[in-house]
Amino acid sequence: MRVLTGIQSSGRPHLGNILGAIKPAIELSKQPDNESFLFIADLHSLTTIKDGTLRREYTRAVAATWLAFGLDTQKNTFWRQSRVAEHTELCWHLTCFTPIPMLNNATSYKEKADRAGASVNSGLFVYPVLQAADILLYDANIIPVGKDQRQHIEMTRDIASTFNREYNDEVFVIPEARIDERLMTVPGIDGAKMSKSYNNYIDIFLPENELWKVIKKIKSDSTPLEEPKNPDTDITFQLYSLLASDEQIAEMRRLYEGGNYGYGMAKKAFYELILSQFATERERFNYYMINNDALEAELQAGEEKARVIAGRTIQRVREKLGFN
Amino acid sequence: MRVLTGIQSSGRPHLGNILGAIKPAIELSKQPDNESFLFIADLHSLTTIKDGTLRREYTRAVAATWLAFGLDTQKNTFWRQSRVAEHTELCWHLTCFTPIPMLNNATSYKEKADRAGASVNSGLFVYPVLQAADILLYDANIIPVGKDQRQHIEMTRDIASTFNREYNDEVFVIPEARIDERLMTVPGIDGAKMSKSYNNYIDIFLPENELWKVIKKIKSDSTPLEEPKNPDTDITFQLYSLLASDEQIAEMRRLYEGGNYGYGMAKKAFYELILSQFATERERFNYYMINNDALEAELQAGEEKARVIAGRTIQRVREKLGFN
Repeated sequence: MRVLTGIQSSGRPHLGNILGAIKPAIELSKQPDNESFLFIADLHSLTTIKDGTLRREYTRAVAATWLAFGLDTQKNTFWRQSRVAEHTELCWHLTCFTPIPMLNNATSYKEKADRAGASVNSGLFVYPVLQAADILLYDANIIPVGKDQRQHIEMTRDIASTFNREYNDEVFVIPEARIDERLMTVPGIDGAKMSKSYNNYIDIFLPENELWKVIKKIKSDSTPLEEPKNPDTDITFQLYSLLASDEQIAEMRRLYEGGNYGYGMAKKAFYELILSQFATERERFNYYMINNDALEAELQAGEEKARVIAGRTIQRVREKLGFN
Repeated sequence: MRVLTGIQSSGRPHLGNILGAIKPAIELSKQPDNESFLFIADLHSLTTIKDGTLRREYTRAVAATWLAFGLDTQKNTFWRQSRVAEHTELCWHLTCFTPIPMLNNATSYKEKADRAGASVNSGLFVYPVLQAADILLYDANIIPVGKDQRQHIEMTRDIASTFNREYNDEVFVIPEARIDERLMTVPGIDGAKMSKSYNNYIDIFLPENELWKVIKKIKSDSTPLEEPKNPDTDITFQLYSLLASDEQIAEMRRLYEGGNYGYGMAKKAFYELILSQFATERERFNYYMINNDALEAELQAGEEKARVIAGRTIQRVREKLGFN
């Protein structure tokens, strides 16, 4: 099965992204029957980020993270959307098969339009069509998404079906959404969902001293050092549990409940667990961030592979539309 | 000056297109200070025409017409929009700099949306952004347009200025509309403006017998053969006057006013004038329609030239947006 995932490039990936999205996607890509198509959705990021230097930096950081976490770029295909011209070409074609009311009814657009008012840009409106192009170019079968993206996949199916019906041919594979209900929610340092926009995230790739500064800020209550503490209501314990082994979790629970174990000590343990557990990933991330040529080589190889597949699809489309 | 014109490919060009648009544009392209950029807007045609075979045929006929009328493809640049990927790429980028209300207020869209209702496709909505991309890719200075297109050029200027301001640099040349108030109106065979949609047009490239059948259908009144006729209210006379020399017109006027000169004879004279005046063009049109390789060679050479210029512009844009 072809599994396709678009990766947002609106920031450096944080622990929430890594545990909630990147690691599960890499696991999925390892299944023998799956071929994963993973692209950095840098064209989509233009709807919100205008600063080119920032986009370049984010795109590199995202690519370095996936590579650091061991994505097999031989078995799978990993590329930057902006480097494969077929994405925007197919986007235009599909726009002509997308009724205006379908886009007007997109929940994500309505929410953004409500917030942004008159300043909302048309890219946000056309967004689901570009997303449809991203999916349909690669004959993807399965699109793993959160519930909030279900409507966009429905729109992709609608647009693809309209096109196939118009030309009475299976030009596009009709994809299916796979909604993962068990998506891991990672708490931020304030206990709310970890998110860039809440500024409560943990960037595991920070230098040690900066990382420790962030970990120290994890919210805790004011129970005195000597008293027993409830691990089940503590954010540091929750975060530690996401990374630790069962034995380590049991040991930490014992320490919390035994008293004379302070939150600072728990934070230190969590900090050290990050450093030891992600030692390889931190090293590889830094390697790719410093060696831009190595990063470029990986992405450009992926882009060549992507272009071959996207090129075949766009040929089928052009043939139907009379553009060849 | 760089003069840019998008050529609709929604049908075979008729006498109205030739006299009203193609010949004046070719004259303009001959001026020593001008370099004309003339592209067949086949991507735009997708908003209304879905049939690929039809689009292929129309595109070829349009190209053959311009070549038949002597467009100098060495001095100027002549290409199919769909073959230069930068058009759709820049379209996406610009979409993210175009506020939704600007597109909602486009008169052409409002008219189409009013007519088509819920079935209106999003391509019609995004149309002015693709048009902006067409213009800005080639650093065009002058866009000759009819009055109904003035608003679209204003939108192009707005989008380009927004972009230049955002990046504090002259990334795009700000184009100017040149509204030609003296545009020639060519009457159709029923006296209304000659138009494909009114089905009252004269296709000068038809085989002789078919052409004669159309010319015979030109509306006339029922004045008997022997009576004098008023040339100034007769459609055949008007059409004849658009092609004939002053002497020929004066002679025809004398015949009308003298009596014993029937409309059929005037039609025959008009028919023969078409054949003699457009003898070369008819031959060259047929040559290009039969010799697809010759047509393709002209277009592909133009597309290579267009890609060089569009490629330079898109590099400037990608640099600012962080896509390189």
